[in-house]
Amino acid sequence: MRIALDAMGTDHAPAAEVAGAVAALADLDSDVQIILVGDRDAIQVELAKYPEIPEGRLRVEHASDRVTPHDPPALVIRRKPDSSIVVGLKLQKRGEAEAFVSAGNTGAVMAASLFTLRRLPGVVRPAIGALLPTALAPCLLVDAGANVDCKPTHLLQFAQLGNVYAKDIMRRENPRVALLNIGEEAEKGDDLSVESYRLLAADSGLNFVGNVEGREIIQGVCDVVVADGFVGNVLLKFYESVAEFVIGMLCKQTDIRIDGPELKQVFRVLDYSEYGGAPLLGVGGVSIICHGESSSKAIRNALGVAARAVATDMVSHIARELSTPTSEEGS
Amino acid sequence: MRIALDAMGTDHAPAAEVAGAVAALADLDSDVQIILVGDRDAIQVELAKYPEIPEGRLRVEHASDRVTPHDPPALVIRRKPDSSIVVGLKLQKRGEAEAFVSAGNTGAVMAASLFTLRRLPGVVRPAIGALLPTALAPCLLVDAGANVDCKPTHLLQFAQLGNVYAKDIMRRENPRVALLNIGEEAEKGDDLSVESYRLLAADSGLNFVGNVEGREIIQGVCDVVVADGFVGNVLLKFYESVAEFVIGMLCKQTDIRIDGPELKQVFRVLDYSEYGGAPLLGVGGVSIICHGESSSKAIRNALGVAARAVATDMVSHIARELSTPTSEEGS
Repeated sequence: MRIALDAMGTDHAPAAEVAGAVAALADLDSDVQIILVGDRDAIQVELAKYPEIPEGRLRVEHASDRVTPHDPPALVIRRKPDSSIVVGLKLQKRGEAEAFVSAGNTGAVMAASLFTLRRLPGVVRPAIGALLPTALAPCLLVDAGANVDCKPTHLLQFAQLGNVYAKDIMRRENPRVALLNIGEEAEKGDDLSVESYRLLAADSGLNFVGNVEGREIIQGVCDVVVADGFVGNVLLKFYESVAEFVIGMLCKQTDIRIDGPELKQVFRVLDYSEYGGAPLLGVGGVSIICHGESSSKAIRNALGVAARAVATDMVSHIARELSTPTSEEGS
Repeated sequence: MRIALDAMGTDHAPAAEVAGAVAALADLDSDVQIILVGDRDAIQVELAKYPEIPEGRLRVEHASDRVTPHDPPALVIRRKPDSSIVVGLKLQKRGEAEAFVSAGNTGAVMAASLFTLRRLPGVVRPAIGALLPTALAPCLLVDAGANVDCKPTHLLQFAQLGNVYAKDIMRRENPRVALLNIGEEAEKGDDLSVESYRLLAADSGLNFVGNVEGREIIQGVCDVVVADGFVGNVLLKFYESVAEFVIGMLCKQTDIRIDGPELKQVFRVLDYSEYGGAPLLGVGGVSIICHGESSSKAIRNALGVAARAVATDMVSHIARELSTPTSEEGS
């Protein structure tokens, strides 16, 4: 198995990427090779810090260009064909890698993944999954921001995509799938919610547990929560900020040291990097998107997720689950 | 000034209401009378605990019925005309009170307020404002859940409603109004966001500061944040739960006692009851909606907000600001 890693994506590229890749080798089977994609010289400088890397487990694929946070995502394929994002994804397209991981410009990774790996047949809109920490096990939010102005059939597919991911990657046996809404009853919410509820309840392949409100997600009542990407993205960003805010305020008001050992476990639960990146679900390959400020630990974990997606053949499972054509296909 | 208080709304009615009303008397001008609306006998039992109430500042208006959390909001006016909610609002309609405060069934308070107080001319959809704690001063979220499937003209009105509230009640001189979105640029977001941005930017009566994302709200970058009621309600409920969750987890993982003095200040900032209820904006009167689990402090503060809304003549200000007919009026 070969995983292409965009080595130029994080704010501390390529140091965080190389460190994450080296650390990941300890987690991954010995037949997994990580391909560091990016500026060869810069990567070699970092690699030189790790003289004990086993033979053949890391290799460098040179990419002379780099996507910045300001590059318009839709134009990256055309304007930056030599960027680490495009070069890395093309490895997968050509069959020279089975997965791609990047902490670069999220929109660009998404657009380039869609262009390069294509939608799977039957998938109307690929979606981003993001793991939300909860009081129990993390919950997958789909869509976390890839799509806005969604239709009920899209939300049904988000549920199906999340269902496969929860089984294959999160190891949940019969994932509880819920719809993010503003009330419990089937008839609550906006037009999109009411009709989506109907579709989700009618899908016998899903363990649909009904509507959940914001306050229930965090209690850990579901494994997958489905939402329009606008709502999902608002929720995700707010979630991140409010946890930081509460802890920051606590530390300011009390004697607790933010780096004290008492807080370590709390941060571990709230730390997104524990969970290893957000998958783009519904494309014909594995593409894992990480935060721009990812640490080496986040990269390491994202590589683990990518490896598991390949090992479990997640993409085939998604293709099989979503091959039923919907009436709105292509819309 | 007379404020009608639904004495039967909270989970601890009428004890919390009576205690809150008694406490509020100390804050309010001596010409303010609070009318406790509900079961006369139950209220008198509570009132007997406060023998020193000044003459004429509290009176009881008997209401023989009570709305439960399970009553369908739309049917309350017809089915429960003798409930404390309907009786209390009718006092305002008849000119026997200038404001109404209730911690009862939110949907019922809203529906009965709309029916009784009516929309102000020019207001298409009255909206609920809710105060979100931030790192700086609280920020008003409009709409916090009264309306779903909103149109851009609705969001423009939410901004105008929030603008008046921020000036009159929150004492912000030139309120910074922002649009909740998933990116900073004008063209970001769903169809609703893009068109709403255009309308907000074009309204010379607003200090529109552009889009804000979830993570920025909490930093205190705006005084009013505008959103569709679906998104707003998801955000509000999540906000409440995540703060509780983070603090709860902290207490579990550390030696901090949840009731310890260190946490008091943190809770004070995060405590919604500090801010005193959510106004229904755009109706022809003052209607303040509180949580069902409101404490006496929450009731006390809500009464203060109601009094300030009357004293500043907020409803007239709203009527004046929103009297420009929109092309979609009534839609």
